[in-house]
Amino acid sequence: MPDVSTVDTVACVGAGVIGGGWVAHFLARGFHVRAWDPAPDAAAKLGRLVDAAWPALTSLGLAAGASRDNLTVTTALAEAVDGAGFVQESAPEDLPLKQKLLADIDVVTPAGVVVASSTSGYGMTEMQVAAATPERFVVGHPFNPPYLIPLVEVTGGTLTASWAVEWASEFYHRVGKTVITMDREVPGFLANRLQEALWREALHMVANGEATVEQIDTAITAGPGLRWPVQGPMLTFHLAGGEGGMAHMLDHFGPSLKAPWTRLEAPELTRELRDAVVDGCVKEAGERSIADLIAERDRAIIAIQRAVEGARRG
Amino acid sequence: MPDVSTVDTVACVGAGVIGGGWVAHFLARGFHVRAWDPAPDAAAKLGRLVDAAWPALTSLGLAAGASRDNLTVTTALAEAVDGAGFVQESAPEDLPLKQKLLADIDVVTPAGVVVASSTSGYGMTEMQVAAATPERFVVGHPFNPPYLIPLVEVTGGTLTASWAVEWASEFYHRVGKTVITMDREVPGFLANRLQEALWREALHMVANGEATVEQIDTAITAGPGLRWPVQGPMLTFHLAGGEGGMAHMLDHFGPSLKAPWTRLEAPELTRELRDAVVDGCVKEAGERSIADLIAERDRAIIAIQRAVEGARRG
Repeated sequence: MPDVSTVDTVACVGAGVIGGGWVAHFLARGFHVRAWDPAPDAAAKLGRLVDAAWPALTSLGLAAGASRDNLTVTTALAEAVDGAGFVQESAPEDLPLKQKLLADIDVVTPAGVVVASSTSGYGMTEMQVAAATPERFVVGHPFNPPYLIPLVEVTGGTLTASWAVEWASEFYHRVGKTVITMDREVPGFLANRLQEALWREALHMVANGEATVEQIDTAITAGPGLRWPVQGPMLTFHLAGGEGGMAHMLDHFGPSLKAPWTRLEAPELTRELRDAVVDGCVKEAGERSIADLIAERDRAIIAIQRAVEGARRG
Repeated sequence: MPDVSTVDTVACVGAGVIGGGWVAHFLARGFHVRAWDPAPDAAAKLGRLVDAAWPALTSLGLAAGASRDNLTVTTALAEAVDGAGFVQESAPEDLPLKQKLLADIDVVTPAGVVVASSTSGYGMTEMQVAAATPERFVVGHPFNPPYLIPLVEVTGGTLTASWAVEWASEFYHRVGKTVITMDREVPGFLANRLQEALWREALHMVANGEATVEQIDTAITAGPGLRWPVQGPMLTFHLAGGEGGMAHMLDHFGPSLKAPWTRLEAPELTRELRDAVVDGCVKEAGERSIADLIAERDRAIIAIQRAVEGARRG
């Protein structure tokens, strides 16, 4: 496999919203990008997407040598992967299509080059079945837009070698991503499961006339959504417990896990789960006291609201 | 009832994390606040909470005359509501306790003064049963911390008069809140249902060893959490559909609603639900094109990340 730090060219296979977002990200990080897409209007759409992303990427700071001119668009797969030290696949969510595409990529990509799939929810085990060298295939799941949201979830399939998972995690880290390397395959990975639970509850509420689309969005943007960029659901509730932290919160709000506040049934709040959540919060808080965390959250919420107001003004 | 604009004194009944947060909010907005709490150490805890919140509130800008000295703490309910033009109840989540407390508040509060409960999930119908004048009781559900998160969900019970719901909505709006007035009682109201679905899925994942507490939080703070202050789940997915918007997104990702991406089963994506969601997004987007929304989102995500970095540095 190539050394992570020597990669200067990446191939992006599939150039829709996600694939195109990866293209923009890698271009901004100074890479040469070879994009493959079978659609006749793909190059034009991709150009518009990169153009739309470029002001944001410029304001964030481009890497040395970064240029939109470093992009090649092709409909020949072998040409796209030629010379690439890494391949990111972002084809539509269609299992047979992905299985065949990964096998096709495998044939034309030099041995040892890691191939990552942007799939939102398929496991690599089910996608790598037709590839001759399945060991270099991993999931590298980004969030839209991939050129701005840092998170990438990395996981392998049963036939994936551990070196490929490690290589991909290191490579994403090098290109500025926040990486969660999972030690097992879970459908939807991690963030999508959390987001999907919220999304499905929202769909139920619209379907039942309990809320409008606009109310759903306001409920998040003017409510808990303002906390989540700075503290995830766990630390958020750690602070809902006041000076007693998550331990007090679970002892006080534990019974509400039985309440019909969502259509999703909660797990039993066993002593083991309670302790795992409390201990995890204490560990995550580290040396920060509850008062420190409150001050950090408050500073962030104020700054986030100003950031959003500014962005809405244009 | 008092005119919304003439209210200069509010009573906060219950001074824990939420009640204390309301106290800080109303003080910062220039009100005289009378806080009631039966705990012997309530005044000291409340003082610390207001002190912790005050720098944030000062940086946001205090109303004319706002002062921490405008706070009175008492253990006599009649004294707390004396002269108050509005009462906010934030006692622990315990139904019999709330039923009795609201009845007690009712006895000592002048007719026509609206009483709102901060309850996280009880309906006013079940809480107002013991009150002699139940028509002035509403839910006014805030988010922690109430002095910074704008959202308040307002709803009445079956015995609540519509004037009380309207009065409370107008009053919250006047004190700087973003108000969602609901036309029916839904357990957990709106934002909590969405948040609770995510939270329960997270608990399942920790219980099953699929993720650590810290991974759950990173998955949100480095992932979808960065989008939610600017665009809720609906507009977020409107943009996941590329130039085709939510219509394309649902046609492409609709099948994934059947996938085991969360333990919550999705509703059937009927033509009616699909159209409601697509039409709602188009309406919410208004005159903003997909490109406008992408630009707005991108500006916001960059500014939000900088806001969080700054807040974490202190």
